Amino acid sequence: MTTPVLKLGIAGLGRGFMLLLPTLAAHPDIRLVAAADPREQARRQFTADFSAATYSDVADLCADPEVEAVYIATPHQFHREHVELAAAHGKHVLVEKPMALSLEDCQAMIDAMHRAGRWLVVGHSHSFDAPYLRASDMIASQDFGAVRMIHALNYTDFLYRPRRPEELDTDQGGGVVFSQAAHQVDIVRLLGGGRVRSVRAATGNWDPSRPTEGAYGALLNFDDGAFANMTYSGFAHFDSDEFCGWSGELGQPRDPQQYGSARAKLASIHSAEEEAALKNSRTYGAGLSLDNSKPQDSAHNHFGLVIVSCDEADLRPLPQGVEVYAHTRRYLEPLSPPEIPRREVLDELITAIRHDRRPVHTGEWGMATMEVCLAMLESARHGREVSLSHQVGLPGTGTL
Amino acid sequence: MTTPVLKLGIAGLGRGFMLLLPTLAAHPDIRLVAAADPREQARRQFTADFSAATYSDVADLCADPEVEAVYIATPHQFHREHVELAAAHGKHVLVEKPMALSLEDCQAMIDAMHRAGRWLVVGHSHSFDAPYLRASDMIASQDFGAVRMIHALNYTDFLYRPRRPEELDTDQGGGVVFSQAAHQVDIVRLLGGGRVRSVRAATGNWDPSRPTEGAYGALLNFDDGAFANMTYSGFAHFDSDEFCGWSGELGQPRDPQQYGSARAKLASIHSAEEEAALKNSRTYGAGLSLDNSKPQDSAHNHFGLVIVSCDEADLRPLPQGVEVYAHTRRYLEPLSPPEIPRREVLDELITAIRHDRRPVHTGEWGMATMEVCLAMLESARHGREVSLSHQVGLPGTGTL
Ligand SMILES: NC(=O)c1ccc[n+]([C@@H]2O[C@H](COP(=O)([O-])OP(=O)(O)OC[C@H]3O[C@@H](n4cnc5c(N)ncnc54)[C@H](O)[C@@H]3O)[C@@H](O)[C@H]2O)c1
Ligand SMILES: NC(=O)c1ccc[n+]([C@@H]2O[C@H](COP(=O)([O-])OP(=O)(O)OC[C@H]3O[C@@H](n4cnc5c(N)ncnc54)[C@H](O)[C@@H]3O)[C@@H](O)[C@H]2O)c1
Repeated sequence: MTTPVLKLGIAGLGRGFMLLLPTLAAHPDIRLVAAADPREQARRQFTADFSAATYSDVADLCADPEVEAVYIATPHQFHREHVELAAAHGKHVLVEKPMALSLEDCQAMIDAMHRAGRWLVVGHSHSFDAPYLRASDMIASQDFGAVRMIHALNYTDFLYRPRRPEELDTDQGGGVVFSQAAHQVDIVRLLGGGRVRSVRAATGNWDPSRPTEGAYGALLNFDDGAFANMTYSGFAHFDSDEFCGWSGELGQPRDPQQYGSARAKLASIHSAEEEAALKNSRTYGAGLSLDNSKPQDSAHNHFGLVIVSCDEADLRPLPQGVEVYAHTRRYLEPLSPPEIPRREVLDELITAIRHDRRPVHTGEWGMATMEVCLAMLESARHGREVSLSHQVGLPGTGTL
Repeated sequence: MTTPVLKLGIAGLGRGFMLLLPTLAAHPDIRLVAAADPREQARRQFTADFSAATYSDVADLCADPEVEAVYIATPHQFHREHVELAAAHGKHVLVEKPMALSLEDCQAMIDAMHRAGRWLVVGHSHSFDAPYLRASDMIASQDFGAVRMIHALNYTDFLYRPRRPEELDTDQGGGVVFSQAAHQVDIVRLLGGGRVRSVRAATGNWDPSRPTEGAYGALLNFDDGAFANMTYSGFAHFDSDEFCGWSGELGQPRDPQQYGSARAKLASIHSAEEEAALKNSRTYGAGLSLDNSKPQDSAHNHFGLVIVSCDEADLRPLPQGVEVYAHTRRYLEPLSPPEIPRREVLDELITAIRHDRRPVHTGEWGMATMEVCLAMLESARHGREVSLSHQVGLPGTGTL
């Protein structure tokens, strides 16, 4: 019994797509059958790489009868509109994080997909990385007792990578809370069982030339009394890949000698247009193609240091597995290296569509993560604890 | 011009004293002239080691005219009473952290010392460790711009070291908030300028056999908009000395193979009496003496991972110096190894007494740190932000 391949259409052929392209190209159960992007060079490249249909408009992509499911990797602000288009045409959807920029938009997306009777998965987020999923399974096994405290820390160069103007404007979904907390909160919710009761956060908007949140600290309280402490800096100073064996976010080997390269590169740029052009000068169809996306020998993806304190042990997901710090011994619960990196997100989509199994990363799950992110912004703005009301638990735990 | 030696009396010859003994013995400007402890064997040992007077009662120690200043290292619950005794006899005081168990007690201690016109220093706390003091100086130099965010993390075996019963009872000052946050908060306040506006924290009291706080997460907001995120676990699983080059809290080399020893040792003990006896079986006068306290070749003391994010760089105090992560390069601002570990706390006391220079770690400073610690407990208990009103800044910054 083989699963028929999933005929996938792509909305948005930018960096998000490039990051998933090695997976899409290597996954045996996926075929790319169409794409939409306003950039002509991206469409031309897509045709060359996949001999597939292309559109300048997502509406036309969604109307294509060949397309069974759409992977929406357009800028955040289009996620709602594009999910609604896909739903209106009866397509399943994989939508990139952050799901959307408001709870209202998230709810509209969920409703549209429900009405259409199609599956919605929110990802890729790093909570799909095998080490976090393995840690989540280990927690579910109850071998380590209750989860009590989670610590998550990530120091990166996020703020100094080349950006489109709206990526530096919080009102348009810019900054690390929308783009990076969407990962970290998703991981922490996965490991903590999902249901956050309240949030207190502080955010850092310190560089007038990048006028959006570049850092945050947040304390999350879960329904069951567990709590999580998260710290993020995208200001490109200290680099927490040091705590992940100098393995990078994508599992690639990092060279600690390559210090400060993001800032150095950006220093030669003098306008927002020039910067957006730089971002677009190395993207799909402009310098990059399928040839640049072969899966490499690498470790698993990660999102910085994560330590889950359970009654019987601390669990530390690492690029090579999960380090278990039990009462009297520590050991690595190893994971074999990924054959196809990031395949977990597509597996969740395919399993939902082909076997009708509810994914972990549903629209409701994605909305709950966005509720935490929005609460972080609100808490930082008003200096107070923010209570939540849209949280959902993990499937199969009775707390859904 | 040589400084006359300071004739110091010791109140409490336990573990706190043993930790400072290498310093006291090696410091050229200190002479131990008397001590008080109810344990006869400790008094006998003190006489043998220092040919000095001993008393069973702190009141008699304070009345001793030979004594110029008293180092109070008795259990927390006696700090107020013993400071008041010292003040009543016109002695200067170094009192161990935590300063006291309530703000009322702290205030009474400050008032008593003010009335006596004598200096009060609160320490040793790890905020006296040279790498934090160096980082504080670097911040004061303004070479690195404003402090924006501080991250502090420490995972230890604190909860499973042998304890007296009251050390496991929060109402009597037990648990990691009183004993360990007193260090971490003091460091974070030193680096953040001192004035915390409000606190949100969660605490973990997870092991019924050790019924007190063993862990916490806390978000501190400073007056000037900077914030600090702190995580502590004393549950003896993951060990954050890994992030300090396997150098221990006291600067000693750690062996990562010696995993889980605290818990293993404790497992052979079956009552609180037996445990307290174990604590007392290896203490000053019972197995330990001046001979066990030679300063070793070692790195500086530390209290886990600390990263201070400034506008121009992240500063990371380490046992060998301060690692500077600037925009385009990283480097170590080295510190020579300590000749006399922990001497900074005595230097602050001596400088105050001999040169009339206000110490950083005044009673007001110690009270402000305790206000944060007490606010952490309150915030965790009531699930809300707690505002502060007794905060003080650093000397010489105009924010005192
Ligand atoms: N999961 C991850 O690790 C990850 C990484 C990067 C980006 N993302 C997500 O992917 C999304 C896109 O971000 P990006 O960094 O790829 O941006 P990008 O600018 O690199 O790419 C966006 C692409 O969408 C195209 N586009 C713009 N408007 C469109 C429209 N109306 N219809 C169709 N295509 C349109 C652009 O031409 C471009 O090719 C964001 O939501 C982002 O958060 C996720
Ligand atoms: N700064 C540090 O690194 C550090 C480390 C350990 C302890 N301390 C502090 O030192 C203080 C003592 O803790 P400890 O771990 O040494 O405890 P401990 O039990 O090892 O020692 C306490 C000593 O005080 C004596 N004592 C008890 N009641 C007394 C009294 N009424 N008068 C005089 N002596 C009395 C005891 O006999 C014992 O010798 C605490 O406040 C603790 O926080 C600080």
